Amino acid sequence: MDQVKIFLDEKDMPKQWYNLAADLPTPMLPPLTPDGQPVRPEMLEAVFPKNLIEQEMSTKRWIDIPQEVQEILHTWRPSPLRRALRLEKFLKTPAKIYYKDESCSPSGSHKTNTAIAQAWYNKQFGVKRITTETGAGQWGTALSYACHAFGLECKVFMVKVSFEQKPLRKIMMGLWNADCVASPSNETNAGRAILAAMPNTPGSLAIAISEAIEAAVTDKTGKTRYALGSVLNHVLLHQTIIGLEAKKQLKKAGIKTPDIVIGCAGGGSNFAGISFPFVNDKINGAKIEIIPVESAACPKMTKGKFAYDHGDVAAMTPLLPMHTLGSQFIPPAIHAGGLRYHGMAPLVSQAIVEGLMKPHAVDQLHSYEAAMIWARTEGFIIAPETSNAVACVIQEAKKAKKEGKEKVILFNLSGHGLLDLAGYDKYLHGKLESSEVSSDEIKRSLARVQVKYHAPMRKSGKW
Amino acid sequence: MDQVKIFLDEKDMPKQWYNLAADLPTPMLPPLTPDGQPVRPEMLEAVFPKNLIEQEMSTKRWIDIPQEVQEILHTWRPSPLRRALRLEKFLKTPAKIYYKDESCSPSGSHKTNTAIAQAWYNKQFGVKRITTETGAGQWGTALSYACHAFGLECKVFMVKVSFEQKPLRKIMMGLWNADCVASPSNETNAGRAILAAMPNTPGSLAIAISEAIEAAVTDKTGKTRYALGSVLNHVLLHQTIIGLEAKKQLKKAGIKTPDIVIGCAGGGSNFAGISFPFVNDKINGAKIEIIPVESAACPKMTKGKFAYDHGDVAAMTPLLPMHTLGSQFIPPAIHAGGLRYHGMAPLVSQAIVEGLMKPHAVDQLHSYEAAMIWARTEGFIIAPETSNAVACVIQEAKKAKKEGKEKVILFNLSGHGLLDLAGYDKYLHGKLESSEVSSDEIKRSLARVQVKYHAPMRKSGKW
Repeated sequence: MDQVKIFLDEKDMPKQWYNLAADLPTPMLPPLTPDGQPVRPEMLEAVFPKNLIEQEMSTKRWIDIPQEVQEILHTWRPSPLRRALRLEKFLKTPAKIYYKDESCSPSGSHKTNTAIAQAWYNKQFGVKRITTETGAGQWGTALSYACHAFGLECKVFMVKVSFEQKPLRKIMMGLWNADCVASPSNETNAGRAILAAMPNTPGSLAIAISEAIEAAVTDKTGKTRYALGSVLNHVLLHQTIIGLEAKKQLKKAGIKTPDIVIGCAGGGSNFAGISFPFVNDKINGAKIEIIPVESAACPKMTKGKFAYDHGDVAAMTPLLPMHTLGSQFIPPAIHAGGLRYHGMAPLVSQAIVEGLMKPHAVDQLHSYEAAMIWARTEGFIIAPETSNAVACVIQEAKKAKKEGKEKVILFNLSGHGLLDLAGYDKYLHGKLESSEVSSDEIKRSLARVQVKYHAPMRKSGKW
Repeated sequence: MDQVKIFLDEKDMPKQWYNLAADLPTPMLPPLTPDGQPVRPEMLEAVFPKNLIEQEMSTKRWIDIPQEVQEILHTWRPSPLRRALRLEKFLKTPAKIYYKDESCSPSGSHKTNTAIAQAWYNKQFGVKRITTETGAGQWGTALSYACHAFGLECKVFMVKVSFEQKPLRKIMMGLWNADCVASPSNETNAGRAILAAMPNTPGSLAIAISEAIEAAVTDKTGKTRYALGSVLNHVLLHQTIIGLEAKKQLKKAGIKTPDIVIGCAGGGSNFAGISFPFVNDKINGAKIEIIPVESAACPKMTKGKFAYDHGDVAAMTPLLPMHTLGSQFIPPAIHAGGLRYHGMAPLVSQAIVEGLMKPHAVDQLHSYEAAMIWARTEGFIIAPETSNAVACVIQEAKKAKKEGKEKVILFNLSGHGLLDLAGYDKYLHGKLESSEVSSDEIKRSLARVQVKYHAPMRKSGKW
C-alpha cells in the first residue's frame, strides 16, 4: 500500500525561518511615505513593536525561531505531509499529488504559525493589547488563540460580509477571550466615514485594516500595537516553516524536488510559506513551476498593476510596491473571504516580476467544484480559499495526464472549511454565482492607483 | 523540550481488531427475543448483512481488518497520540496526560472507524442502501462519508433537538450525498406514532433507531440494511484500533501501561475503542483504573439498572443485557447529543458488572467548564461529548497532584467541537443549565423496564 502520510518528529522541526529577501536577484524596493521617501523604521513604531520592524526590514537569510515559539508550534507542528492518492486515482493521473495539511492547527489554518510568532514578539516588547483585521476569520481566530496563549488582549475588526456569513468564527474568537466586531464599525473614524458614505458596504480587508491601525495608534496607554495576518515580509517569513518542513518530508518520500508548487494567494502568506524555500531552489537552478492562485473576484496578480499602493483604504499604511487593484477596490462578496484583498505581498509581487512564479486566477464556481471533488475523494472539507489552489492542482494533474508525465505536485492545504459549510450548501443548491469582476470595474479602480512613485521601480532596471 | 505528539507509521497500524468477548471472565449473555428465547442469527438478517451478524456473534479474539478498509483508514490513521503538556502545567499536576486524537478523521470523530468497516461489509454483501440514526451528528456524517466512499446510498434519521442545534451537520452529510431528516419524522410508522403522542418531543436516539430500522426492513428491494453507530459488539470491535494504536504509541514514549484510562460513553463505542485492549491487560493482572464517563443527564451506568431491555423505543430490536434507564427514557436536550442514549453497550455493561471498570457521571456545566479549560490550554475545541471525558481527566489529574503521584492518564479525544460552537456560546453567556435528571424521573422510567428475563442473568452466578 502506498504511504499517504509523511510525518516529521518534533525534534526535526526547522529551527530557523527562511527569508527570501536575502536571495531575490534584485533587492527589494523599500516602502515609501506618501511623499515618496523611503519609510524609516521609527515611523512604524506606533504601529508595530520594534523587534518585528527589524524583522520586517531584515535581509538576513536565516532567522532563528525563538524557543518558546517552537514549543507552542509543537502543539501541531511539524504538520503532516499527505499524499492525495484517492484524488490521483479519481483523476487517473500519473502525477503524484502531495500537500501540507495546515488545517490541523488549533485555529484550523496556517495563520496560527505567524500569530504565535507575532504575539510572542509583541509580548517581549511589552505590548499588552493587539488589534487586527480579519477576512474569512482564519487570521482573527489564529491571533485570538495566540494572544490568549501569551496573556495579551486582542481586538478584531472582521469584514462585515464574513462576519455575517461566518458567525461561528466570532464565537471561536470569544473562546479565547478576544473581542470581535463587524467592519466597518462605529468604533473608529475610518469606519464611521465609510458607513456614512456606503451604509450597505460588505466591507473589505482594506477598510478593516484602516480601522485596526487607527485603534492601535490612537490608544493612549502606548501599550497597543497592530498585527497583520499577511502581506508583510515578517508574516511571510514566519510561514516559511511550511515549505521547509515539506522539503524534509518530500526527501523522506524519496523526492528531491517537486515539479510544481501551488498555493492559494490572498495577501500571499500561505503561498509564500509553501513556496519560498522552493523559490530559493529555483534561483539556484532547479526547474520548478511555482503558481500563486488568486480568485477571479480579486485578480490583482493576473489583471492588476505592479505599483506603489496603500495597503488600506484610508491610506494609513505606507506605500508598498505590489500587484494591486487599487486600495479602494471592493471585490464581490465571495465565500473565499481571505482572497478578497486588493494587493499582493511585495515579496511575492517582486518574485512574479522577476519571472520566478506565474499567477493563475480561478472563478468561484470552479473553486467549489474542486472543493467538492476533494471532499468526495480525499474526504476532508477544505476552506473556500484553499479550494482555489485545489482547482489549479486538478488542472495541472490533468495536464500531466495529457502529457503522460509523472510530475510531483506539491500544494498547501491552508485550512479546513468546517466553519464555511454555508458556502458549500449554497453551491450544492445552485445558489452561487460566477465571481469574475468585469474589466471595466478593474479599469476604473486601477485608474485611481497613484503612479507617481513608479520611477524608482523602473530605475531598478527590471520593470 | 518534551515531545507532545507520538506518531505511528501506516505500516505499523494494527492489522486486526481485538474482541473483548473472547476474554471476559464470564461468557456474554445472548440477546433475547421478546418471548425470552436467544436470538438466532437468521432473525437479524432483515436488519444487518450476514457477515456483520457473524462478527456480532463472534468470540474470536483477533479479527482481521480487510485490506480495503485498512487503505481508507490510512487517510487519517494511525491517529496521533498527543500529550496534554499545557494542561498538565496549568493544573500543576505530576500526572502525565496522553490522549488519542480521533478528531482528525474526515468526519471529525472516532465514528469514522466503524463507518468505513460497516460500509465495506455491507457492500461485500450486496447491500445498496444503508439507513441509520444519529444523535449529535457525528455518526451520521461518518456513515455518509463511508457510504459515499463505497458508492452506497445513505439515509439518516437525526434526533430532532440535534438537527435543530447543529444545522451544519446536515450540510456535511449532504456533501457526501446522504439524505438526512429530523426524527421523529413523518416517513415511518414509528415516527408518526411518536409525533401524534408527543408533537413537541426533542426526539431521542431510541426513537431514531426505531425509524431507521423500520425504513430498512420495509424496503421492498431487499437491498437496504440498517447500521448502528455504537452499542453492538461489532461496532465496539471496530473501534479497538484506537486502543491498540495507543499501546504501541505509549510504548514508543517509554510507557508500559497507563494508570488510568478514560473515555466518554454514550453507547460505549469510543470508550470501548480506547479501553478494551487495556481491559485485556487488566484481566491478565495489570493494575489499571478504567473509567467510562457518562452525562448526568442520562446516567444509565451510575443510576440505571443492569437488565434486558430494548435498544429502541418501538421495541424493534432484540432485548439486550445492558445498563439502561429504560427505552422510553427521554433525556434533557443537552448539547452532548451523543451521550443521550438510554442504554450502554452489553460488552461495556458486562465489564462493569465484572468489576473491570468503574463508571462516572458528569454534569453539563462541569463538562463545558472542562472544555473551556482545554480550549484555553491545549488550544483545540472539543466535542461536547468529549468534554465529559476531559472533566474526569482533570479530576483525576488533580487527585494525582494531591497524592503526589506521577500517574499516566490516557483518554480518548473522540471528536472536535467545531460544529458545536453554539453550545460553547451559550455556556459563555451563562445560558446553559445543569443537566442532572431527578431521581424520581429515573425511578419512573426504570419501573417500565421489563425484568422477567433477569433470571438467566442471575443464573450466570455473577449478578
